Amino acid sequence: MNPIERGRRRFLKESAALAGLAVGAVGSASGQTPGTEKQVDPKTPYGERSRFVSSARTAREYPSHTPYPSRIMDAADALIVTPLQDSAGIITPSPLHFVVYNAGYGYPRLHPDIDPRQHRLLIHGLVDRPLIFTMEELQRLPSVSRTHFLECGGNSRNSVWPGTQGTVQQNHGLTSCSEWTGVPLSLLLREAGVQKEASWVHAEGADAHKHSRSFPLEKGMDDVLVAYAQNGEPIRPENGYPVRLVIPGIEGNRSVKWLRRIKVADQPYTSWSSFAAHEQGVKSVITFPSGGQRLPGPGFYEITGLAWSGGGAIRRVEVSTDGGRTWKDARLQEPVFRKAHTRFRLDWTWKGEEAVLQSRCTDERGDVQPTLAELSRIHGVDLDWWRSTSVHFSHFRPIFPWKVTREGSVHNAMY
Amino acid sequence: MNPIERGRRRFLKESAALAGLAVGAVGSASGQTPGTEKQVDPKTPYGERSRFVSSARTAREYPSHTPYPSRIMDAADALIVTPLQDSAGIITPSPLHFVVYNAGYGYPRLHPDIDPRQHRLLIHGLVDRPLIFTMEELQRLPSVSRTHFLECGGNSRNSVWPGTQGTVQQNHGLTSCSEWTGVPLSLLLREAGVQKEASWVHAEGADAHKHSRSFPLEKGMDDVLVAYAQNGEPIRPENGYPVRLVIPGIEGNRSVKWLRRIKVADQPYTSWSSFAAHEQGVKSVITFPSGGQRLPGPGFYEITGLAWSGGGAIRRVEVSTDGGRTWKDARLQEPVFRKAHTRFRLDWTWKGEEAVLQSRCTDERGDVQPTLAELSRIHGVDLDWWRSTSVHFSHFRPIFPWKVTREGSVHNAMY
Repeated sequence: MNPIERGRRRFLKESAALAGLAVGAVGSASGQTPGTEKQVDPKTPYGERSRFVSSARTAREYPSHTPYPSRIMDAADALIVTPLQDSAGIITPSPLHFVVYNAGYGYPRLHPDIDPRQHRLLIHGLVDRPLIFTMEELQRLPSVSRTHFLECGGNSRNSVWPGTQGTVQQNHGLTSCSEWTGVPLSLLLREAGVQKEASWVHAEGADAHKHSRSFPLEKGMDDVLVAYAQNGEPIRPENGYPVRLVIPGIEGNRSVKWLRRIKVADQPYTSWSSFAAHEQGVKSVITFPSGGQRLPGPGFYEITGLAWSGGGAIRRVEVSTDGGRTWKDARLQEPVFRKAHTRFRLDWTWKGEEAVLQSRCTDERGDVQPTLAELSRIHGVDLDWWRSTSVHFSHFRPIFPWKVTREGSVHNAMY
Repeated sequence: MNPIERGRRRFLKESAALAGLAVGAVGSASGQTPGTEKQVDPKTPYGERSRFVSSARTAREYPSHTPYPSRIMDAADALIVTPLQDSAGIITPSPLHFVVYNAGYGYPRLHPDIDPRQHRLLIHGLVDRPLIFTMEELQRLPSVSRTHFLECGGNSRNSVWPGTQGTVQQNHGLTSCSEWTGVPLSLLLREAGVQKEASWVHAEGADAHKHSRSFPLEKGMDDVLVAYAQNGEPIRPENGYPVRLVIPGIEGNRSVKWLRRIKVADQPYTSWSSFAAHEQGVKSVITFPSGGQRLPGPGFYEITGLAWSGGGAIRRVEVSTDGGRTWKDARLQEPVFRKAHTRFRLDWTWKGEEAVLQSRCTDERGDVQPTLAELSRIHGVDLDWWRSTSVHFSHFRPIFPWKVTREGSVHNAMY
């Protein structure tokens, strides 16, 4: 019997909190569960949540004393974060998917209200046969479904700033994971006939400021999707309805929403240095217990969280409950998708002592999530650099520790 | 190059409809896509669909001339069907998951409005340690996430009755597929300590009529989940909030919703003959093109649909476009989950002739979906038996043909 199995079998015996639940006389407990019988319209065309469920997106907040440039603070309400503390499994419900408004600092936050019958997707530039598709035509083409995360390049960087809320939603909620369905971009490019001198793809959205981004043709011919469905239904308006790019593993702002134009070119129109410079992960975070939560008392808990890598599949997640002195392998939810959130879980019996919880993941390339100190060495900066007022950094992915106090309250332990 | 690859490369050339889209002068087409820029509240806590998306559940309808017992017709509005014609990938959005109200014929359709803080799950009967869990306690236990379909045993049987609407939603919409998260029932049973003489599990819900069902302990120790989350958020009220059973592969009514009691016993309290008698599938249906839809004209289309088996994973789906004379292997969306919907796809160029489309699947055991004639031989009945007024049959899973007319309209070809 391996340690996990043994832990599973014994979790009630080891746990005062739960062991206390084994009752002797259960007769009365089998009585009616409280709960009003509610009359429902059996034709309910599109169901709603229980009135007891309140999980919600919110804006990422920046307290006034945060040492960060004001132009970024202006943009704060452009970052709408996913409640990762409430997540289960690997699918993010579409109504809770994070949203970034790229319109620019100080602009009102808008999204286009597109009638799909009027929408067109144009493919042109260095191609033999320019093509225009209606949505109906696009949906007739050979399609695929793939589960991928999207993450904003700026996710998690507020986790090093004292004074922020320090919840997993506020600090890490700019990542979400969906089952996307659409047409491989490679198929559309092959149909259009990419010319020899082509080396870049440029994508443009139908929003007011025409959000546009470039990426290498090599990536466009690899795993990029022209997606029209998310988790089994049309993509939500704020996430690109009726059609968007999904560029797996790469910072979210490249995955142009409300996609209306693909231009094949021999140069980039917006900056791009290398895949590595725009790749997300290797990264993981514990979602329970996490900042702002409170453990009701000593006993058995399942530590759980998410791990992901823009470079492929997660192979291993280790969890430490003693501030990094010792590590245990967490269970990974199978199947593990490439460039997707991976759910990990570890049994833990909390004895009421102060504890620092953290996770460390490894992807299929062998890349390991570093500590903040290691990440600083990699970048040649000191620890304070990350908190400086003048630096706008991306792809922040050190090991993120949570401290559990003796009282059971959980806090961000990055600062 | 295999036939599928060749088909993919050539679909535009073969298709008059789409080939006509290759435009010469594209300058004007790159202009502004119509669509009002809409101001949104960036804090939108729980997002909504586009106003152009209207996919909806509806009641399964029985026209008055349907040759079927009136007591079943009374129950018609207890069957709320999923719009499979709008499905993409394998996840059914939770607001569109099918619902069956089991309260009984003629009863109003109710579901309990449960406050999770008041809800309790009791495990008792032939166990050493009876246990009661609050929802908070249940959610602290070791959990798993698994993607499984649920299907009503009565799904698809209306497909043989002339006069029904003949859409894939009306005929086959009592199946849906979700990522479920919860605690393995086996873990709870081990903690409670199942006694030697135990051989059955009895589950009871907190709805007004205490829906209850029995199943063998052997199944309970296998892959049954005590689930509290569906597609990344709490289960919806009409599907069992805050906790339900998910019994993979078995007719849906056994997966007791609003679960409040598990009793271990040495006999069943409700009927059960064998796994095979209650198992769903091996089954598949084409969701596009399907009954009630209309193809706008000859040209390239992707035929797509869903296949599933209560006995394990789908290994193969074949599609015929000529009424069953010839068959081609469809592409299966990877990964293929056991006891889950599996998305299949096949490229097809419709030349405008009358066509009969149908799919045939094979599962990991080698079980093949039969024709209606073959199914009749298996059951020792004649074809008219299925349409008789006095027969209440379940687990109906013959090959389901759709006829495409020269005009492009699509009809149920079961009768």
